[in-house]
Amino acid sequence: MIDRTVEERPLPVTLDALMRPRSVAVIGASSDAAKIGGKPVALMKDHFQGTVLPINPNRPEILGLKAAKAIGEAGQPVDLAIVAVAAPLAEQAIEDCIAAGVKAIILFSAGFGEISEDGLKAQQRMAVSCLKAGVRLLGPNSLGLMNLHNGLYATFSAALDNVWPEKGSVGVASQSGAVGTYIMALAAEAGIGFSHFIATGNEADIDVTDCIEWMAGDPQTKVIVAYMEGCKSGARLKRALQAARLARKPVIAIKPGKTDEGLAAVRSHTGSMAGSKQIFDAVLKAYGAWSANTIEEAVDLARACSAGRLPAGPETMIITPSGGVGIMMADACIEAGLSLPGLGDEAAAEIRALLPLASTGNPVDTTAQVSNDFRLYGQVIDIVATRSDVPILMIFMAHMGKTPAITELLKPMLREIAGRYPDRTMAIVTRAADDFKREMGESGFIVFEDPNRAVAAVGRLLHFSRSFDRPSFALDSLTPMDTSELAKAAADPEAGAALLSGLGIAGLPQSVAATADEAASAAGAFGYPVVLKIASPDIQHKTEVGGVALGIRDEAALRDAFAAMMASVAAKAPKAHILGATVSSMLVGGIETIIGTQNDADLGPVVMFGLGGTMAEALRDVVFAPAPVSHSQALEMISSIRAAELLDGWRGAHAADKEAIASAIVAVSAFADANADTVESLEVNPYVAMPRGGVALDMLLQLREGV
Amino acid sequence: MIDRTVEERPLPVTLDALMRPRSVAVIGASSDAAKIGGKPVALMKDHFQGTVLPINPNRPEILGLKAAKAIGEAGQPVDLAIVAVAAPLAEQAIEDCIAAGVKAIILFSAGFGEISEDGLKAQQRMAVSCLKAGVRLLGPNSLGLMNLHNGLYATFSAALDNVWPEKGSVGVASQSGAVGTYIMALAAEAGIGFSHFIATGNEADIDVTDCIEWMAGDPQTKVIVAYMEGCKSGARLKRALQAARLARKPVIAIKPGKTDEGLAAVRSHTGSMAGSKQIFDAVLKAYGAWSANTIEEAVDLARACSAGRLPAGPETMIITPSGGVGIMMADACIEAGLSLPGLGDEAAAEIRALLPLASTGNPVDTTAQVSNDFRLYGQVIDIVATRSDVPILMIFMAHMGKTPAITELLKPMLREIAGRYPDRTMAIVTRAADDFKREMGESGFIVFEDPNRAVAAVGRLLHFSRSFDRPSFALDSLTPMDTSELAKAAADPEAGAALLSGLGIAGLPQSVAATADEAASAAGAFGYPVVLKIASPDIQHKTEVGGVALGIRDEAALRDAFAAMMASVAAKAPKAHILGATVSSMLVGGIETIIGTQNDADLGPVVMFGLGGTMAEALRDVVFAPAPVSHSQALEMISSIRAAELLDGWRGAHAADKEAIASAIVAVSAFADANADTVESLEVNPYVAMPRGGVALDMLLQLREGV
Repeated sequence: MIDRTVEERPLPVTLDALMRPRSVAVIGASSDAAKIGGKPVALMKDHFQGTVLPINPNRPEILGLKAAKAIGEAGQPVDLAIVAVAAPLAEQAIEDCIAAGVKAIILFSAGFGEISEDGLKAQQRMAVSCLKAGVRLLGPNSLGLMNLHNGLYATFSAALDNVWPEKGSVGVASQSGAVGTYIMALAAEAGIGFSHFIATGNEADIDVTDCIEWMAGDPQTKVIVAYMEGCKSGARLKRALQAARLARKPVIAIKPGKTDEGLAAVRSHTGSMAGSKQIFDAVLKAYGAWSANTIEEAVDLARACSAGRLPAGPETMIITPSGGVGIMMADACIEAGLSLPGLGDEAAAEIRALLPLASTGNPVDTTAQVSNDFRLYGQVIDIVATRSDVPILMIFMAHMGKTPAITELLKPMLREIAGRYPDRTMAIVTRAADDFKREMGESGFIVFEDPNRAVAAVGRLLHFSRSFDRPSFALDSLTPMDTSELAKAAADPEAGAALLSGLGIAGLPQSVAATADEAASAAGAFGYPVVLKIASPDIQHKTEVGGVALGIRDEAALRDAFAAMMASVAAKAPKAHILGATVSSMLVGGIETIIGTQNDADLGPVVMFGLGGTMAEALRDVVFAPAPVSHSQALEMISSIRAAELLDGWRGAHAADKEAIASAIVAVSAFADANADTVESLEVNPYVAMPRGGVALDMLLQLREGV
Repeated sequence: MIDRTVEERPLPVTLDALMRPRSVAVIGASSDAAKIGGKPVALMKDHFQGTVLPINPNRPEILGLKAAKAIGEAGQPVDLAIVAVAAPLAEQAIEDCIAAGVKAIILFSAGFGEISEDGLKAQQRMAVSCLKAGVRLLGPNSLGLMNLHNGLYATFSAALDNVWPEKGSVGVASQSGAVGTYIMALAAEAGIGFSHFIATGNEADIDVTDCIEWMAGDPQTKVIVAYMEGCKSGARLKRALQAARLARKPVIAIKPGKTDEGLAAVRSHTGSMAGSKQIFDAVLKAYGAWSANTIEEAVDLARACSAGRLPAGPETMIITPSGGVGIMMADACIEAGLSLPGLGDEAAAEIRALLPLASTGNPVDTTAQVSNDFRLYGQVIDIVATRSDVPILMIFMAHMGKTPAITELLKPMLREIAGRYPDRTMAIVTRAADDFKREMGESGFIVFEDPNRAVAAVGRLLHFSRSFDRPSFALDSLTPMDTSELAKAAADPEAGAALLSGLGIAGLPQSVAATADEAASAAGAFGYPVVLKIASPDIQHKTEVGGVALGIRDEAALRDAFAAMMASVAAKAPKAHILGATVSSMLVGGIETIIGTQNDADLGPVVMFGLGGTMAEALRDVVFAPAPVSHSQALEMISSIRAAELLDGWRGAHAADKEAIASAIVAVSAFADANADTVESLEVNPYVAMPRGGVALDMLLQLREGV
């Protein structure tokens, strides 16, 4: 369970005392290094660059360090206190820490919100005490924290028994200690170095979002990996992501719970509200972060980011001694959004002078000729790097990285090339000895064993460079609308059309007719053919109740349709309040789309775009973005649906006016943003995109519960 | 370039002499073990269980073995000759081998079909000589062959310098030596053991298909991994895959060239015809094999298959000490087509008796409580295995596999459980020491480090068990149609409709009208509304030339539409031969689908199914299967399109008659199969699926070029 009572803090206190303390006390310190209260003492004794103060009422010395009887008797200021006592003793320990003036607390103890309502209340009490005293609290049920740069091993993780992470630039924040250490261990084995590791546990105070925001400003962190099962505040998350984006630090987040079964597991695990994964992904993407689906994807991407060379564009040259792997990498590049320009005649001629049988397209395939003298392979890489100015080089080296005789030849050549072009992204794919991987990594290369994983990770780097280069935009905010006005627009089609019209979205001439006579009179004024739709605030899916009649050609047909509709609706939705039927002129041509908004409980208002019609709905071919969006973001949304081609004029049809669709998306998103307190959702469906402009044929506005 | 002249052999000779020779001669044997003619001698001298005969005109002894001056002077029968000489000497060496009575030849030498037309001719001459003599030829440009079970290292692969594959049950056949050794090395490092490794190179005679077929009958091979850039004969490939399926041996194939860029790279690499990846995938799937997209996917799946326990069904229990990883695995299971049944009250009670805080849903989450005594984790696994009879257990063990104190506790418990349920698929996901991985592998567990990769691989095992359990089907073949009859059906809509009718696919009443008067008379007979479509053998996409008019309500409108259509078609397709316009009654309701066939140049006739309309076309939501298909295969095709839900009655619409669609798919596929020599493609588009039955509204038949 996550404590939601201390959500918005009056004055957030920095995490500096937690993350970079000068002195650490361990309450419940033990002489047994295998125990929860012994491990951090043992680790920090050997590694911490500050003072370690074991606290134990019964022992004057712990693992060779002088111990104090109580935190109040420490005899010196304490920045950070680790509380490693049984759950029933934790509250008193927290109070003692506060009284002793500590600035931050890590609460290892478990048995709180994760097991019972009473436990939840206890953790809330502790969080409130800390909050009042200006003390930041990590936990309870936290596996702890590491700062690899000052040797702060404030953790009892058993993973450190079998993997020793090196100092580096990747910061990891994870709600789950087990997932966090698994990520860290796999990443460490892949050669990644770390700045911080933080397990936030029950998040009574500090959550993963806080850690992201702090690391965005931490000079030792260049890449942030986060695991979060829920999100307490969308606003804070957006602020944290924005801070990381402005600092040009890639954020790679994993949020599980994609399927119903996964969501059920989230709930039984933490009781977190697990919002829609699709919306979470959209928010991350819009703020320049990346939502990874698996641990491996996150670790691969962190590896690629660690090289510190984000590509300036998608153009890629592939160099390979194996045609077969070249083909696979070419496929993978295209699927990853990379492009493969030609090599150029000059470079091709130079390569053929060295290797007459080389294929000098892209991939450049040296063939196995290089096995006579592997320096030739280095020379080919040099020619490609020098003659072609593509931002990305992907170099397959097969088994070369495993053979010292070959790596000794190639290492100086590769190091020199990487040094000469410090702005290019260069990846080596090879089976390799650890020292080759490490040395090439230090020279700026991204080193992978698997060709497809390498290409996928490099392709995703483009997402970061594009996001970081995109200017932040400021939108004119709309004024929130009056609640009574909104309620009227929700209930009455004409008021709804007026609302859209106020957002610059045109509708067709239409009017609500309470009787068949009124309908006939309106249709006569508009001209046939017309469309008839049931008008009722209670009916959302009109087709399902027989509430839509299209292509009515004359008055007789109109009267028939009116009568049939009223009968069908009365039978299928007997409780609905019926205003009558909306008569409107019928639009010919155009492409049906849907523009909608939703107010996500965690992440706030989002705007959605997709094609209309049952086919599009059945295929869920829709995209989301946090509202509000800019015009260029809206255009990006439009081009990122799977069936985007249809809007370009499919099979001789007219192209849709994408500028008009984008304007409508922007307006709807601004409306959702301005009215986030009152509006649950607005759906413009269909919005018919015409060759010039577009028309809203129907809309559905829902207010938040209780409004 | 692939030699296509020796495609169909009169009497294929078995590959036994190649794969399991008792004696091997090396022509061009060298005393330098680093050289192409030295390495196989050096390797086989130490490992081969038969006789090794170096052949060298100048040296009486090679690497301590007695050498003969020429193959004709070997003084004993030679099963297999390796030819490792410069290209210009290869033809003579082949002739010498044939004269000396060898049964199979591996030609290492490069510089043939892969570099020039002359080279291609030379390799064709050698293949023809071998063919005439009943000698099988591997290569030229082959990296060679290994049989791990008798120590046959008939290869010069440098990969053996840094990886030593163990004996086992996975056979690898690869057109590319570099891709093949990369797969083998990664697989060996993942703990996989091998039966054979074969690099087919230029495939003048033996190709990857031959190797698959031979391994299907080889008792030492249980799993087959194949890399192929093209396919010389679809009929042979299908026969080979069928043989493997009947032997219950999973075939995992990689065929690159998915994108245009990848295809271009295939062509520049080997000149292979690279057929459609989608059709290749469909053929493999229909024959029970799996088409892997990446090396990693293939290796992961081979690992999972190696355990030899294909799951009997999709039901899976997840056991985890970490809630977070449990969520990720639950998500991954659902996406992989596995299901997560509940645990059952009895098992839940037993687990809670051991671990009061455990979550006893699915995943079963023991929480970190087990760290007090890891035997508890073994007990939980035992309870789940005993009380629940699901065919799949997925066990997350976090870092446990790295800690000897824990693995020593758990190994006997796990071994006992795996032994007790030899038919269940059990996977362990853990960071692990090599010995733990190996021992658990030997006990029957599938061991992975990454949770998502483990679940994906286990999910794919289901494809194999389902395919192997499916009975082979025999279809009544149709009689091929007369070419003149087919030509008539291709040119004349009425004859086309009659052809479909003969296949049991109904059409609407329709007739071709040469004039507006004839159209009016037909429409009068059918009743309005009617549809008018241009009738021309030269026009395929009628909409694009203004050749379709829908919903014509009366005679005046019909005459207008006829005139407008003729004018539009005359303007847009001035060269087309116009028969007139087809008048047909108009169908109301139903769901438009497309049923089509294509005659793939490599793989023969395939049948395609998808939804109709521009949306479906733009999304390419179609599935393929090799023709002919059975009724149940047709039903599987129908349910595997992404928008399959639409056929089930979306939002209150009637469900489509899937049995009728399936019958139409079966009939069209049988037609394509029977007329594969003459018919290029048949497209029934749209085939309107109605609540009962279905109707073909249009068809397009194309004959093969030259027919």
